[in-house]
Amino acid sequence: MAPRIIVDAMGGDYAPREVVLGAIEVLRFLPGLQIILVGRREEVEKVLQSAGFAGDAIHVVDVPEVIGMEEHPVESIRSKEDSSLVAGLKMVAEGEGDAFVSAGNTGACLAASLRYLQRIRGVLRPAIAVTIPRGSPPLVLLDAGANADCRPEFLTQFAIMGKVYYRSRFGVKEPKIGLINIGEEETKGSSLYITAHGLLKESDLNFVGNVEGRDLFGFKADVVVADGFTGNVIIKTIEGTASMILSQLKEKFTRDLRSKLGSLALLPALREVKRSLDYQEYGGALLLGLNGVVIVGHGSSRAKAVRNSIKVAVEMVQEKTVEKIAKEMEREVR
Amino acid sequence: MAPRIIVDAMGGDYAPREVVLGAIEVLRFLPGLQIILVGRREEVEKVLQSAGFAGDAIHVVDVPEVIGMEEHPVESIRSKEDSSLVAGLKMVAEGEGDAFVSAGNTGACLAASLRYLQRIRGVLRPAIAVTIPRGSPPLVLLDAGANADCRPEFLTQFAIMGKVYYRSRFGVKEPKIGLINIGEEETKGSSLYITAHGLLKESDLNFVGNVEGRDLFGFKADVVVADGFTGNVIIKTIEGTASMILSQLKEKFTRDLRSKLGSLALLPALREVKRSLDYQEYGGALLLGLNGVVIVGHGSSRAKAVRNSIKVAVEMVQEKTVEKIAKEMEREVR
Repeated sequence: MAPRIIVDAMGGDYAPREVVLGAIEVLRFLPGLQIILVGRREEVEKVLQSAGFAGDAIHVVDVPEVIGMEEHPVESIRSKEDSSLVAGLKMVAEGEGDAFVSAGNTGACLAASLRYLQRIRGVLRPAIAVTIPRGSPPLVLLDAGANADCRPEFLTQFAIMGKVYYRSRFGVKEPKIGLINIGEEETKGSSLYITAHGLLKESDLNFVGNVEGRDLFGFKADVVVADGFTGNVIIKTIEGTASMILSQLKEKFTRDLRSKLGSLALLPALREVKRSLDYQEYGGALLLGLNGVVIVGHGSSRAKAVRNSIKVAVEMVQEKTVEKIAKEMEREVR
Repeated sequence: MAPRIIVDAMGGDYAPREVVLGAIEVLRFLPGLQIILVGRREEVEKVLQSAGFAGDAIHVVDVPEVIGMEEHPVESIRSKEDSSLVAGLKMVAEGEGDAFVSAGNTGACLAASLRYLQRIRGVLRPAIAVTIPRGSPPLVLLDAGANADCRPEFLTQFAIMGKVYYRSRFGVKEPKIGLINIGEEETKGSSLYITAHGLLKESDLNFVGNVEGRDLFGFKADVVVADGFTGNVIIKTIEGTASMILSQLKEKFTRDLRSKLGSLALLPALREVKRSLDYQEYGGALLLGLNGVVIVGHGSSRAKAVRNSIKVAVEMVQEKTVEKIAKEMEREVR
């Protein structure tokens, strides 16, 4: 049966327009798909009509409420049960869809997922896994922000979930697992990381040791494990550094005529580097450790990013990533 | 009296050559300075001679041992008391110099400073402060790696020390203090950061709130406070991201003839951006909270970086930064 993907039509800075367009686009690549857009019917159908969409691959489920990007996660999911985010996740929980995709409030998405989908048996904490562009194969970092306070055992579980995800998505049987740290030696880091290093070393994972921030873009590890505080700081620091450098370059390139002429020739190269850093190509963050596939795109997702998030959701459904994580966890618990 | 700067002639990947050349260079800018090069006399004097240096502004103190970049900090300073690093710091402790500059092993430098210079009264933990290039005014981040495990009160003290340092170095009376975090709201972050936020808010510092990784290069804060684990991950992630992007660009710029022609025109712009990110311009990391000025340059420091580290050391001596930190701490302790 074709996967049925529930999409939060109201999530993100450019919803519903870009979300709906992304859903339409993805059907060109995956024609068998069923997409259920959850949101304000009138607004959603307006976009479908303006795009000239007709067909039965997209259904619309009408709900009145929207959770904003800045709303408090736990409060908003309590007070807005009729929001696209909560209603959509409930549909997955009730088996009316195979995966949930949103570009909305990450915290609310996590809170609602925990409440309605619940954790996989044995999983101590779910984690947010993000794909960091660096050429091929890409890097997966987790936890990117679900758990600001971690215990060492959480980090070991992140490694196991990251392994299963990486394997499903990039076809590497035993991905190299690294631990973010401030030095290569196993005695380096905070007490959390020293203990986590020991646990990872004893595990049967393909653990390659500590990875420093400057080595993230090397290919020492495929999956890098961090606590959610550090992981979140890392992805935002990469984002900040990249946009600072690219905007500095653009400014200097367009400053004088000589540079202007040169930049005509170089624009393709600059565009290519920009694209290689483009999170939109990478399909958003996956919430790992839940009884269901949940993908949260960047708040500023455009149609392309939404399209790619849906694609990743389909892959995760087809690869049975959730079932595989459950199996690994069972093995751990035994 | 002219400041007397003790320089670890054997510290860093390009020692003694680049260190000695940096010392010679700085005398062109600060002719009144006294520099004491500590290291293997024969090797050091060979460089002085080959550079044609003659004069009494540089003295050489002969010690036989060298602490390598990869040696264990505490063990190495115990077993190698006759190393340039330990002997140099001892000289500062004994009043034979006003500041210590090294491009050697940061951990060993910290351990030896704690042992011989000791902490300023009231300082719970010394911190490593680094200057991050982002245009003017630059950003100071601390702790960049001295304390992997922190308590909230450490972070408040880092903020106070950072303030005094920033004021001394960049002339801003009440620099804006930010706390690294994973969101803007004060309820965000790990328990360490939530408590630290509360302490900073209650303090009389010019606290501007949480700063996310993507905002480091904005100008929300002048001084950003972090625990040493997170701070170290940040600076290395910036380093890794920047060199990844610049090398990608360089590769693409030189790939085909059309780009090659363009890159001739753009090389100045690329060089300028590279320079703006160059830690060598910023004079290394300052160890704050000790009874003495200690500056540790990047291990890969060349003459220019050494020269700038010495310049910063002179500034800190002249501005009496250590005395000012001691005064603030007294006020805190009362």
